[in-house]
Amino acid sequence: MLKQYLLTPGPTPVPERIMLAMARPIVHHRMPAFTAIFNEAAEGLKWLFQTSQPVLQLAGSGTLAMEAAVVNTMKRGDKALCVVGGKFGERWRNICKAFGIEFVELTVEWGKAIDPQAVKAALDADSKITAVFSQANESSTGVRHPVEEIAKLTASRDGVINVVDGVSAVGAFDLPMDRAGFDILITGSQKALMLPPGQAYIALSDKAWKRTESADLPRFYGDLKRERKAQSGGETAWTPAVSLTVGLVEALRMLKEEGLEQIFARHDKLARATRASMEALGCKLFAPGAPSPTVTSVWGPEGIDTGKIVKHLRDKYGVSITGGQDAVKGKILRVAHLGYFGTFDILTSVTALEMSLADLGVPVKLGAGTAAAQAVLAAGPPSK
Amino acid sequence: MLKQYLLTPGPTPVPERIMLAMARPIVHHRMPAFTAIFNEAAEGLKWLFQTSQPVLQLAGSGTLAMEAAVVNTMKRGDKALCVVGGKFGERWRNICKAFGIEFVELTVEWGKAIDPQAVKAALDADSKITAVFSQANESSTGVRHPVEEIAKLTASRDGVINVVDGVSAVGAFDLPMDRAGFDILITGSQKALMLPPGQAYIALSDKAWKRTESADLPRFYGDLKRERKAQSGGETAWTPAVSLTVGLVEALRMLKEEGLEQIFARHDKLARATRASMEALGCKLFAPGAPSPTVTSVWGPEGIDTGKIVKHLRDKYGVSITGGQDAVKGKILRVAHLGYFGTFDILTSVTALEMSLADLGVPVKLGAGTAAAQAVLAAGPPSK
Repeated sequence: MLKQYLLTPGPTPVPERIMLAMARPIVHHRMPAFTAIFNEAAEGLKWLFQTSQPVLQLAGSGTLAMEAAVVNTMKRGDKALCVVGGKFGERWRNICKAFGIEFVELTVEWGKAIDPQAVKAALDADSKITAVFSQANESSTGVRHPVEEIAKLTASRDGVINVVDGVSAVGAFDLPMDRAGFDILITGSQKALMLPPGQAYIALSDKAWKRTESADLPRFYGDLKRERKAQSGGETAWTPAVSLTVGLVEALRMLKEEGLEQIFARHDKLARATRASMEALGCKLFAPGAPSPTVTSVWGPEGIDTGKIVKHLRDKYGVSITGGQDAVKGKILRVAHLGYFGTFDILTSVTALEMSLADLGVPVKLGAGTAAAQAVLAAGPPSK
Repeated sequence: MLKQYLLTPGPTPVPERIMLAMARPIVHHRMPAFTAIFNEAAEGLKWLFQTSQPVLQLAGSGTLAMEAAVVNTMKRGDKALCVVGGKFGERWRNICKAFGIEFVELTVEWGKAIDPQAVKAALDADSKITAVFSQANESSTGVRHPVEEIAKLTASRDGVINVVDGVSAVGAFDLPMDRAGFDILITGSQKALMLPPGQAYIALSDKAWKRTESADLPRFYGDLKRERKAQSGGETAWTPAVSLTVGLVEALRMLKEEGLEQIFARHDKLARATRASMEALGCKLFAPGAPSPTVTSVWGPEGIDTGKIVKHLRDKYGVSITGGQDAVKGKILRVAHLGYFGTFDILTSVTALEMSLADLGVPVKLGAGTAAAQAVLAAGPPSK
């Protein structure tokens, strides 16, 4: 038996409490028993998004919610400004392209965060731009983008909304929708919410809701006005992913028990410990200027394909972490600390990585990364 | 404790085996462990659809697959022929409308099946029609439509495909995709496949795949060509509903153990038993000419709102069956026999209905419907 440790930035580990909740007998989505479950989930999502707006539950993955953000707020002739500094930034651009929306691509080097001044300049330069699409956390590169700064730029522009893909971010670090002024905020079930994938969540500000009135792109399954109407009555327009909604209630209870501040502090501490350990191991941070609170990306040791390291970790030790994709395939490693992660998940990743590097002939001192992580993890008061 | 019996035509009961499979630790959708699971599910779906074509797995409900059928095969200027004889027929029309596809609505009275001659006449009358959209089973009315006859009509027309919504049908009665010549066949997870809702499945014939080349409606999340490419490599384009795929493997194993012929025979027997019991109770069949093998619809007793009966069954006995929707709201009852249903699920529905009718003052002889069902259910050899 090779015990398996799934330590990736999504799907993230699912707590036993949630798995058992989801294994309960199925309920019917048009009956009162479901409405009670649905409404508890809906209230919890508002708490998590820190918004007074309804947070809609969609049956599908995060990409469905991204598409919904575009087709429900854009009209033909509008132009989009897409922040592209990784795989998920590219997705905004690709969705706009698929729906015939002209776009300006604001390219940022992989591993770097967008400079808000570049967004400002792009907005100033082109009055046809009606929306800025970005990621709160670009998980393909381990970068946190300053979406709060972008929101400030669009707040003063009547005709421009900001759309934040918070898939690997909401519920892991502070993204207070109403206070920050995000016009659209999105997340998925399989990240900080600790559920299996298959459900996406999306909230719109008043400014964004107003845009749905003039939006003229075709939509049906992802029609948010229709969903808002149905969901205000405690059900969904189309058949929902019932077992995920049941699990969502349990997940939100767990998160409420921990409290938002504590959740954010936990992610921050695990992130700091991971970064310290990687540097102690001689792996340079890939995104030192804007490291993600949910996934730490590092350059692999020279002369070795990181895909080989990932495979070795999985095959010899049963530990699943992730490598790079596309432009940084084979070049970086990504160590997750997102969702149901605690102290010893980080130490599992770090100790497994140390042993794997040693196995593969990389000069590494066993325990060096571990000690650096431990120093961070042991600091502060014991958790309650 | 009021023990609950969910006996609706979707979600249908989920077997314990499947619930437990889905409660297993989550696997990552871009790793080899998932590919093995995914490929087993994909092979099993081909067996269930009786096709050599790939059956694509989508994260979303049946409506997503219906939308995908439209946007991947139609182009601007095309006309659709929609068979509309219930809530799901209306959905085809509404999707076409949302995407700006002109349509001819072939209305059929609720409770009646479409006459293939009417389809032929409509096709003959309008050469702009390029697709016929219908339901194999219109679950809102409990009607089985002759989709095999429609497929024969489109087979001889090069420019016309037939699209079959088999959501409450595939895996319950015989719909051999390749042999019957269906160009698109769709189903969802929460029906005959005995899973929670949240996943949809869709297969296309060569003729339909060819249409995806010229189709010009915008699509991204539901882009089937992209999915086919990804899924031929053992993964999905977007994050899949992983736990449902895991459950799907278990469901398909159960269905294979039973065998297609036996599955169809079981549904047929349960349907016949249900019809016999309803008639014995004095409830007239709503769709006597083309009764559905998966849900039996009957007129309620005179002078009583069937919604009241459904509520009484649920509140007093914990038994959930369904009433009518929209045009037949309050007028009909729908008794399901779809998916994980056996002899005593039917007898639960029937005995509960008898008691409820008596409670509500409807003249009914306790046991009369039961005896009629028993006579059918006891016939034939004992099951293996």
